[in-house]
Amino acid sequence: MNSILSRRTIRKYSDKELSSDQLNALLFQASRAATMGNMQLYSVVVTRSEEMKEKIAPLHFNQPMVKGAPVVLTFCADFNRFTKWCELRNADPGYDNFLSFLNAASDTLLYVQNFCTLAEEAGLGTCYLGTTIYNPKGIIEALNLPKLTFPIATITVGWPDEHPEQTDRLPLQAYVHEETYKDYTPNQLDIIYYFKEMLEENMNYVKVNGKENLAQVFTDCRYSRKDNEPISDGLIEVLKQQGFLK
Amino acid sequence: MNSILSRRTIRKYSDKELSSDQLNALLFQASRAATMGNMQLYSVVVTRSEEMKEKIAPLHFNQPMVKGAPVVLTFCADFNRFTKWCELRNADPGYDNFLSFLNAASDTLLYVQNFCTLAEEAGLGTCYLGTTIYNPKGIIEALNLPKLTFPIATITVGWPDEHPEQTDRLPLQAYVHEETYKDYTPNQLDIIYYFKEMLEENMNYVKVNGKENLAQVFTDCRYSRKDNEPISDGLIEVLKQQGFLK
Repeated sequence: MNSILSRRTIRKYSDKELSSDQLNALLFQASRAATMGNMQLYSVVVTRSEEMKEKIAPLHFNQPMVKGAPVVLTFCADFNRFTKWCELRNADPGYDNFLSFLNAASDTLLYVQNFCTLAEEAGLGTCYLGTTIYNPKGIIEALNLPKLTFPIATITVGWPDEHPEQTDRLPLQAYVHEETYKDYTPNQLDIIYYFKEMLEENMNYVKVNGKENLAQVFTDCRYSRKDNEPISDGLIEVLKQQGFLK
Repeated sequence: MNSILSRRTIRKYSDKELSSDQLNALLFQASRAATMGNMQLYSVVVTRSEEMKEKIAPLHFNQPMVKGAPVVLTFCADFNRFTKWCELRNADPGYDNFLSFLNAASDTLLYVQNFCTLAEEAGLGTCYLGTTIYNPKGIIEALNLPKLTFPIATITVGWPDEHPEQTDRLPLQAYVHEETYKDYTPNQLDIIYYFKEMLEENMNYVKVNGKENLAQVFTDCRYSRKDNEPISDGLIEVLKQQGFLK
């Protein structure tokens, strides 16, 4: 499982083609992930055409990976397929609610990670675009997603044309709790975030952005309250539009 | 990556111990999963004591894996740690909203699946308990989870003491769409679900439950509207209680 340990996000891809056969094999193998009641509450929309890449790139804030990758995959929570099957069988599907959204989103993300592991083990590179849930409405329109589906994650995939450094991770004691959750003291937080705060790259971000420390880079520049709150309201509106929330 | 392809859920575990060292190594290695802005928005509560297993077993509807496994892991979306760090650094954290919940839940589920893959590659068996989001309030109380955390998934883990059949999966064309989502026709649904409906085990469920077909087993017995709707309302209440929704 060396590919998991040596993993890095790949944002630059070579011109080498990723065949449909290989992609489909990986998409099928990934379905061995655990799934609620074996319902497989997900769908994947495969984007290869320039036309569709042009459409969705702005929805991902024009991150260059969307047009630069041979394949862009949009993974969607999907209770539409299962619901349509129930209706066809004269069964009453009760999946137009938030619990069902979270069940389907969970299935989807387990499947996403399984796909990424298999792709990386095959030598491919992937990049997880967290922007999907920032612009769900636009993505739903572009990909023609019906009610009871919701775009959860976008992965760009292709053969790597770069080998970046691995990024840092928190020490284990930052996130593992024995028996019950022990909340963090200021002293513990200092220790947990020490390495991250001392990284030259991060100290540089602080300087360039004219901030006092790294936390302010996150809260003021990268993921600010001012941006998060309207985006969050929009997300809830789209959950309603897609039939997952009343 | 044979362990992914041959994966099955393991519900019965041998008496062999799972050492803290081995468990911690896996929990650390799993952190190579993609994470939003490298924030690692998750925590894991490790349950080994009989006392805590007694407490949480009823919250998982007394599924026998909880008491039968050497280790039970509750994976939580966690914006508490990051928020506390921001506050300590005089930065304004804007993560008390639904967008941030979904970001943290996504990080958590990618991490969960990475952990399961690594554990299974090491010969361990896992079972994903989807019941976590059915009783979040009780789990929050039992594990002492603070605001801006939320239990997302529970995994029981140990050395396998069974080798069940692999369960079926839908054909690839059931969930992969080229360029845009193509909604399902009745004829396509018949094809997609044919194999599942014809399985002896599933035909038996239909008979035993006195239903017309498999879809009705799902909608009337396993995941009914009558159960889902109040559970969904409760889930939303707990999201509010934990500070992720106004």
